[in-house]
Amino acid sequence: MIIVMKHTASPEDIQQIVKSVEALGLKATIIEGTERTVIAAVGEERVAGIRSLESGPGVDEVHSIVAPYKLASREVRPDNTVVTAGSLVVGNGQIGVIAGPCSVESEEQLLAAAHAVKAAGATALRGGAFKPRTSPYSFQGMKEEGLKLLAEARNQTGLAIVTEVVSPDDVELVAEYAEVLQIGARNMQNYRLLEAVGKSHRAVLLKRGPSATIDEWLLAAEYILDGGNQNVMLCERGIRTYEAHTRFTLPLATVPYVQARSHLPVIVDPSHGTGHTDLVPAMSRAGIAAGADGLIIEVHPNPEKALSDGYQSLTFEQFEETMAGCAKIAAAMDCKLGNG
Amino acid sequence: MIIVMKHTASPEDIQQIVKSVEALGLKATIIEGTERTVIAAVGEERVAGIRSLESGPGVDEVHSIVAPYKLASREVRPDNTVVTAGSLVVGNGQIGVIAGPCSVESEEQLLAAAHAVKAAGATALRGGAFKPRTSPYSFQGMKEEGLKLLAEARNQTGLAIVTEVVSPDDVELVAEYAEVLQIGARNMQNYRLLEAVGKSHRAVLLKRGPSATIDEWLLAAEYILDGGNQNVMLCERGIRTYEAHTRFTLPLATVPYVQARSHLPVIVDPSHGTGHTDLVPAMSRAGIAAGADGLIIEVHPNPEKALSDGYQSLTFEQFEETMAGCAKIAAAMDCKLGNG
Amino acid sequence: MIIVMKHTASPEDIQQIVKSVEALGLKATIIEGTERTVIAAVGEERVAGIRSLESGPGVDEVHSIVAPYKLASREVRPDNTVVTAGSLVVGNGQIGVIAGPCSVESEEQLLAAAHAVKAAGATALRGGAFKPRTSPYSFQGMKEEGLKLLAEARNQTGLAIVTEVVSPDDVELVAEYAEVLQIGARNMQNYRLLEAVGKSHRAVLLKRGPSATIDEWLLAAEYILDGGNQNVMLCERGIRTYEAHTRFTLPLATVPYVQARSHLPVIVDPSHGTGHTDLVPAMSRAGIAAGADGLIIEVHPNPEKALSDGYQSLTFEQFEETMAGCAKIAAAMDCKLGNG
Amino acid sequence: MIIVMKHTASPEDIQQIVKSVEALGLKATIIEGTERTVIAAVGEERVAGIRSLESGPGVDEVHSIVAPYKLASREVRPDNTVVTAGSLVVGNGQIGVIAGPCSVESEEQLLAAAHAVKAAGATALRGGAFKPRTSPYSFQGMKEEGLKLLAEARNQTGLAIVTEVVSPDDVELVAEYAEVLQIGARNMQNYRLLEAVGKSHRAVLLKRGPSATIDEWLLAAEYILDGGNQNVMLCERGIRTYEAHTRFTLPLATVPYVQARSHLPVIVDPSHGTGHTDLVPAMSRAGIAAGADGLIIEVHPNPEKALSDGYQSLTFEQFEETMAGCAKIAAAMDCKLGNG
Repeated sequence: MIIVMKHTASPEDIQQIVKSVEALGLKATIIEGTERTVIAAVGEERVAGIRSLESGPGVDEVHSIVAPYKLASREVRPDNTVVTAGSLVVGNGQIGVIAGPCSVESEEQLLAAAHAVKAAGATALRGGAFKPRTSPYSFQGMKEEGLKLLAEARNQTGLAIVTEVVSPDDVELVAEYAEVLQIGARNMQNYRLLEAVGKSHRAVLLKRGPSATIDEWLLAAEYILDGGNQNVMLCERGIRTYEAHTRFTLPLATVPYVQARSHLPVIVDPSHGTGHTDLVPAMSRAGIAAGADGLIIEVHPNPEKALSDGYQSLTFEQFEETMAGCAKIAAAMDCKLGNG
Repeated sequence: MIIVMKHTASPEDIQQIVKSVEALGLKATIIEGTERTVIAAVGEERVAGIRSLESGPGVDEVHSIVAPYKLASREVRPDNTVVTAGSLVVGNGQIGVIAGPCSVESEEQLLAAAHAVKAAGATALRGGAFKPRTSPYSFQGMKEEGLKLLAEARNQTGLAIVTEVVSPDDVELVAEYAEVLQIGARNMQNYRLLEAVGKSHRAVLLKRGPSATIDEWLLAAEYILDGGNQNVMLCERGIRTYEAHTRFTLPLATVPYVQARSHLPVIVDPSHGTGHTDLVPAMSRAGIAAGADGLIIEVHPNPEKALSDGYQSLTFEQFEETMAGCAKIAAAMDCKLGNG
Repeated sequence: MIIVMKHTASPEDIQQIVKSVEALGLKATIIEGTERTVIAAVGEERVAGIRSLESGPGVDEVHSIVAPYKLASREVRPDNTVVTAGSLVVGNGQIGVIAGPCSVESEEQLLAAAHAVKAAGATALRGGAFKPRTSPYSFQGMKEEGLKLLAEARNQTGLAIVTEVVSPDDVELVAEYAEVLQIGARNMQNYRLLEAVGKSHRAVLLKRGPSATIDEWLLAAEYILDGGNQNVMLCERGIRTYEAHTRFTLPLATVPYVQARSHLPVIVDPSHGTGHTDLVPAMSRAGIAAGADGLIIEVHPNPEKALSDGYQSLTFEQFEETMAGCAKIAAAMDCKLGNG
Repeated sequence: MIIVMKHTASPEDIQQIVKSVEALGLKATIIEGTERTVIAAVGEERVAGIRSLESGPGVDEVHSIVAPYKLASREVRPDNTVVTAGSLVVGNGQIGVIAGPCSVESEEQLLAAAHAVKAAGATALRGGAFKPRTSPYSFQGMKEEGLKLLAEARNQTGLAIVTEVVSPDDVELVAEYAEVLQIGARNMQNYRLLEAVGKSHRAVLLKRGPSATIDEWLLAAEYILDGGNQNVMLCERGIRTYEAHTRFTLPLATVPYVQARSHLPVIVDPSHGTGHTDLVPAMSRAGIAAGADGLIIEVHPNPEKALSDGYQSLTFEQFEETMAGCAKIAAAMDCKLGNG
């Protein structure tokens, strides 16, 4: 930790900060600059209250120098984590493809989607049964009935099931039916939920919150890893920026940045990341070219009639074309796409 | 709802959209422009799947024209909601002042803070017992033991207690000890939790998520109101922007904007909204001048040693000065500040 | 400057960086942490190419520790700069009030506005003659004819004139007519223009760019100060964020933050900062309560018919009410508002 | 244009707005909704002052329904514009590659870079002679001497020259030496400069401002097209968001979004778009997979010693590898990359 003192800081201020640093078990080195004095605090930075030093006398700013996460970092585990969950394999050159409708709406809708996405090369089926909806007046999902339909779709297609869990109390139930527990963007910092999936034997797909920093996201993963569950996939699904022509801004530089710092695989969600059907094919290809370990794409038999997210869902035909375009990019990257 | 067609849309496309609009129970009016055709869809916009029309043939964009929330709106309830919770009164010219430490750390710390903030004019005591922390390595709160200390502080000072609840399972327990249940920014879209506090008899302080739009925030309030709990206070605590010199950006225009659209009182949090002790006094005053119905401020006997948020906590002396400055502004606004 | 090495950096990497630091004339100190090595580089950081060290072998990140600006900083000049330009005085408890229409549209419009804003307490008249417009199809301003009308308005009212200059070639012409040269937000980093006004004897109002950091803004001021012109007023006019209910987000914490670091006065623009007439009064008051040294407000005889910015302009009556509200806040702050 | 009235608007308010709409030469249609009345205004929306209607009595919001630009739109010109400037061809499956140092620093540096980038497949050489620098203390460029070195590099390699122009007064001079005039991000809304390059016979590379919307960017292009210059290339170089781990956030969805609306080619700048050498190769590939018509990449013989932007510059070897990776993606997209 680097503590930058104000130019008005007195020698007494500096001495007091040195003492406070040492009281936290860290070693302090004073560096006298031409305009400012800086105190370097060396040791375990991850102790409670360390940032409160910023309130100390004469302190201007405090900068961390080590990543706040450990278990998620490559420093602790240099090799790539490969997540396998039924038919879904993600990592080390295997690009997993999770596709399906936003919400499970009916048996007919789900099974049609399941067969179609499998035929086009998907390796897992997505579909929401418990839906976190912005408005209490929106469709809230079919709940356990939806889970049963997902299980039926797996029986018919062999596809692994990826579905969202929104409450610690539901983790056990959802884990009975699904290979992968999805933590949605709005729950990325729902720590009770992270702790609950951390104790599950099921793989977890952890979406990035729309205003989360990379550190906050990897710390959310850290809660799951710390609970004992090592099968974590990160999912970049777009961040909130001033841009209004897309629903979110999909920052693909996340992919190489996170892969350099963490061993966990990174999946890209071009559906939420753009919010418009028209932009999904290009951003799916771009995600793979950026090095993504997987894609998660919304596909619906009839997007115009979808109970949720129709504006960003692909038809079966659009999904097939998207997969064909992605397959060429994956080949150029020496990767294997989906079940292709 | 306004549906803007592409300039390439055919008459058949337009007819299909009109049918889809009518199938949702809305009335369609076609407006032929010089460059584009627009379809106005009149009726109850709050029906499942309406935005999926954007996937219809020839559709370019869809704009909502009614607010997505109802119970939170002034259209439904024109008069200001005044929330009373023990010693805390918020709304209609009474500016509630909630102050205290970020976390309950010890009996000594909490009681000192409670007496100090009361003496300086606060009408409620804040203090976290269940802490949602970004890192699993940070201090996680004293939990029920912390709640008991809060109750003791109320016994000694008469101050109403405001404390965060992070899980639906804890609502009942926290409601035993506290007058106000706080929903933190990270849980603003934890819908199970919103539903749980919606059934509580305790008042709720609903913080805005750092990337939530005003509509999303008021829809979160709608979940609580819809559950039957009318005692909801909104809290603007800053949003995430590109600015790095403050921890969040505190957009005070939220105050008059929301007050014009909703009957719920709006409280400002200058501590999280800036992240720096030095900026709290000015933004407290500015919040009141913008018309805020209350303030929530972090105060700690010794910020430099705080287990959390020390960098943005005021000392007792700083809080007293801040209150003195705020009292003058409140008087200029013809409002009553805290217990003054 | 603090150079954080990667955990994989070798002793040779560290030695090479030390050499590079020394080659730039700085002194290097090596601090060996438990997880990372950090190199502190002490000396004049403001040398060309210093940040390129980030490309050095084994380097992870580089943090600056001194502010990049000098002349604008309080470290160089501890006392407040007070800017006087004709009837306009800004700083040290005198709150300047600049008001008038977005664009000069006609003699009748401008003179009516000039008399009205003076009667309500303004100390300077704003009005655009050279307009930087987003669209080539928008009204581009009356140019020199507009300047002449501004001069006539000054003759009749005694109000100092504040008007925008958009090109280095126009500086001399505009300086003949106006007491204050405004640099608009879009030109904040038009360095040729900054250099040109730096050589003028007229005061300068420097608006913050909508995505400028505070450092970038103060560096823009530094160009003007470095040119020899010390009469610089900073103007916070809102930044671009994800919020769509206001045209920009007005971050009032800028006021105390900049005042702590710079001796230059800070003016707030609640018109552009919100983009909606309804929000201007509250944010004007809030600006003063945050400690602003001045306000700049758009006022028009008939906003609905304005050729530009009508949606954020006040009528004469609204301006008068706004000033009355602000006067009470200014009194509570022990400041003098406008000519009151 | 859609004018949404407040729910409190009176019939008189509605009639007044209808009159105001008609006074602007547009046709008004009233649509009475269940909660709000909406007025559709049909006709040429691009008239001065139209948005000022938002100040009319009873008006809540105004939405545009046609794009504010014309000449840049596909509605006016359906076919792709292909820009040819010396050795540089951009558009219709030809991916132009512009590479070279941020600044021209010396003959040796520039010529080495020119030969290296050509050998690796670039079709144009970039290099700044007039540098717009955030700080007055940074290297400001070699000016005309730099232009002469660029001309010499063209003589030796045959590469077209792309260089920035920062002032209307310099356009003629720069156009003598360079095939492409670059408008930097900070000057995207320097309208005098846009007008000046609009009259030039040289092609223009128009960078997106870091907080510009797509509409603002295309309106900046409109200024150039309106001046008579049709050889405009758009360049996405990243936007400012809350993300701090990259210098800007590179939103690649811009590529398909703009290509659907405009006939102008879109180039991606992964150097400024990320700000870190390590991220440039992945984002170069992703840009091509997203459908970009070109790339502009910073390359330097010795990034660590660069006078500007070293942290985001590639070495010759890194550029060669990046081009090899990109060539595979371009082939998968059935495009031709650079001179390959």
